[in-house]
Amino acid sequence: MGKSVVKVAILGLGTVGSGVAKLLLENNQNINQKIDNEVKLVKVLDKDLTREREVDIPAEMMTDNPEDILSNPEIDVVVETIGGVGPAKELVTEALEVKKNVVTANKEMVAKYGSELLELSDENGVDFYFEASVGGGIPIIRSLKESLTANRIQEVMGIVNGTTNYILTKMIQEGAKFEDVLAEAQQKGYAEPDPTADIEGYDAAYKLSILSAIAFGSPVDVDDIHLEGISDIKQEDITYAKELGYVIKLLAIGKEADGEIEVRVHPTMIPNEHPLAAVNNVFNAVFVKGHAVGELMYYGRGAGSMPTGSAIVADVMDIARNINYRANNRISCSCYEDKDIKPMFDITAKYYIRLEVIDEPGVLASVSSIFGKNNVSIESVIQKGKIDKTVPLVLVTHQVTEGDIQTALKEIKELDEVKELSSLIRVED
Amino acid sequence: MGKSVVKVAILGLGTVGSGVAKLLLENNQNINQKIDNEVKLVKVLDKDLTREREVDIPAEMMTDNPEDILSNPEIDVVVETIGGVGPAKELVTEALEVKKNVVTANKEMVAKYGSELLELSDENGVDFYFEASVGGGIPIIRSLKESLTANRIQEVMGIVNGTTNYILTKMIQEGAKFEDVLAEAQQKGYAEPDPTADIEGYDAAYKLSILSAIAFGSPVDVDDIHLEGISDIKQEDITYAKELGYVIKLLAIGKEADGEIEVRVHPTMIPNEHPLAAVNNVFNAVFVKGHAVGELMYYGRGAGSMPTGSAIVADVMDIARNINYRANNRISCSCYEDKDIKPMFDITAKYYIRLEVIDEPGVLASVSSIFGKNNVSIESVIQKGKIDKTVPLVLVTHQVTEGDIQTALKEIKELDEVKELSSLIRVED
Repeated sequence: MGKSVVKVAILGLGTVGSGVAKLLLENNQNINQKIDNEVKLVKVLDKDLTREREVDIPAEMMTDNPEDILSNPEIDVVVETIGGVGPAKELVTEALEVKKNVVTANKEMVAKYGSELLELSDENGVDFYFEASVGGGIPIIRSLKESLTANRIQEVMGIVNGTTNYILTKMIQEGAKFEDVLAEAQQKGYAEPDPTADIEGYDAAYKLSILSAIAFGSPVDVDDIHLEGISDIKQEDITYAKELGYVIKLLAIGKEADGEIEVRVHPTMIPNEHPLAAVNNVFNAVFVKGHAVGELMYYGRGAGSMPTGSAIVADVMDIARNINYRANNRISCSCYEDKDIKPMFDITAKYYIRLEVIDEPGVLASVSSIFGKNNVSIESVIQKGKIDKTVPLVLVTHQVTEGDIQTALKEIKELDEVKELSSLIRVED
Repeated sequence: MGKSVVKVAILGLGTVGSGVAKLLLENNQNINQKIDNEVKLVKVLDKDLTREREVDIPAEMMTDNPEDILSNPEIDVVVETIGGVGPAKELVTEALEVKKNVVTANKEMVAKYGSELLELSDENGVDFYFEASVGGGIPIIRSLKESLTANRIQEVMGIVNGTTNYILTKMIQEGAKFEDVLAEAQQKGYAEPDPTADIEGYDAAYKLSILSAIAFGSPVDVDDIHLEGISDIKQEDITYAKELGYVIKLLAIGKEADGEIEVRVHPTMIPNEHPLAAVNNVFNAVFVKGHAVGELMYYGRGAGSMPTGSAIVADVMDIARNINYRANNRISCSCYEDKDIKPMFDITAKYYIRLEVIDEPGVLASVSSIFGKNNVSIESVIQKGKIDKTVPLVLVTHQVTEGDIQTALKEIKELDEVKELSSLIRVED
């Protein structure tokens, strides 16, 4: 008796879609050894049927009409790799409505419409999986949903954007300027021609929204995420970080305590010994703290055709197993509570602050006194010798609230001796 | 309408059993929010009903008679945390035979009888899960079985024993001797009074057997694993490793190529930049290479009551989901092929070799010539100045086969100028 066949279609044949097709076609035998039924790629949608492709797909499998897929009752699983919200969300919605299981790598769509799409999949008794939407090949979503599910997750902290991690790594290791490394990254294809989504942290924010929703069991609106990119990071700060035993990473940070969720994406100083500190170049990693499991970290390739394809095909295979047992929807929606988002001024962190001050006695005293008045206590100070009329004054605080530090800084900036607040970078131990 | 209840019993209330009981009792509400049915601890077996415990269990829940659990048709899931093969295997076998799902953390039992028990669970339509048997709280088993299943796994490389990693970390960071650190670890409870199973690598070998079986889809007999412990590691080698840019870790290494599996546990030098190099103290980590996903690493707590409990309760919850959908056994047995084990003399690696030689001209030439004759090419040599009549000669080879290196060393040891082969440590890049 032959195995029953689970038919798969791919919407969109870009980098990620090609990886999925390649895996399903070239690793077919190995894949089907591992499941009781069989997955089979039957249809691929691409808007341009004539272009050169990395993967050899039989002509009769190609189509430029989505209805060839959505109206075909034989297709069980639709893989969406178009990206963006544009037509993708419409096609995914339609697929779920006609009771097709959906797998996607689309972080923007999942971040913005994840709850809605999960509900729709629930109503239609099909699966909506999105492992590849965060961390590429790193299996963080399934881990949070299944392997760590006995935990109350307290913290997720991720390097989830390869472009910015590549740029920061080069800035740290080679002493290069942000602008120069960005230009090099664009040349190598590690950064987009318009790099805004990566550099300014939007990409990381989408991923944090997804991670936090699952980790903390509550929807997290992307607009509620405090967002700072890396374009203002200066070599001076990297050098001071080294002196203080830190490295600077763009972190996506989610925490939960007392039913309140804190979500922020910003450059962060972390100690050299922190497991995330050694995550370099385009690699991604997600650090998780659970009340039972303690500290965990997942490390791997956060993007690319085959790593992302690996995550998507694993989702397809999981769905095939569910189909075999009529167990689709066995992982219920994660969005079971509606927790509050902590206002940014209430969060606590340590702060690295670099001021440009006039080099005269008493400046440190004035600055310290304003900090003291605002409940900000100082852990360390670096004051370098005279360079010019002004000198940098670098301080690292103990744990304080964002509100207190901002109030203090407002006052400090008004001091005559203080010429500039050059940098403020949060520190996580 | 109430949720249907999945009844759970624990066999054995040691460190791990207590963690499971604690999680099931104290985190019950949070756990049951995440599944459609409900898991409930109903019975706990302990041989001593009177001793003090870390967790408060109602007296009526306790029993010292396993039949109270195995003969109770209401119990759906049995958690085995007795450890060892002794009575554990008998009880697990009986549980599976009466169609109870089983979750275990028992690496020895799974390594020795995993295939047999998986088959038995298959025959009886129940699940046999063992996430906690490797890496404690690190979800490596489910990842290999589900998240990375689209890959042909090429390599698993793990720091899977906390005791030896603690000892090596102290030796590296504090320059302490093996014997002294071991004594300290025993005092702190990080090492057993009889430390053989950890120190000599048996514990790591059990875990490698399980990891490799799942990663490569073929049973791996523990007796086929090449085994070397850490008791011969000397400070001299740690110092030379530093000079060469390496750290020494006890690694459990599994590789597959051309249908042949290579499995070995031994002290290994890895480059400082390798993700495993930063895994210190009692932390564990598993590094995986898949043909699609590339390099991945999982890092976390490899032991302890709550981390191990976290993995076990996640397995219980997964089984609860399966029960809800009558989908037990949806992850089929991993043992679907019978691959050959590569003989140790056929493996290739780089080798660090420390010889004690008489300090006279021509020694390096004699040694090099024997290496050359045996296809062993040298990557680097360190020859230190005179200390005594004899001096250490340190060599690192390029990739060579174990057979060639052993043949060469046999000849080299016979040279008059060579007083001793002090160390041989394999190097992985």
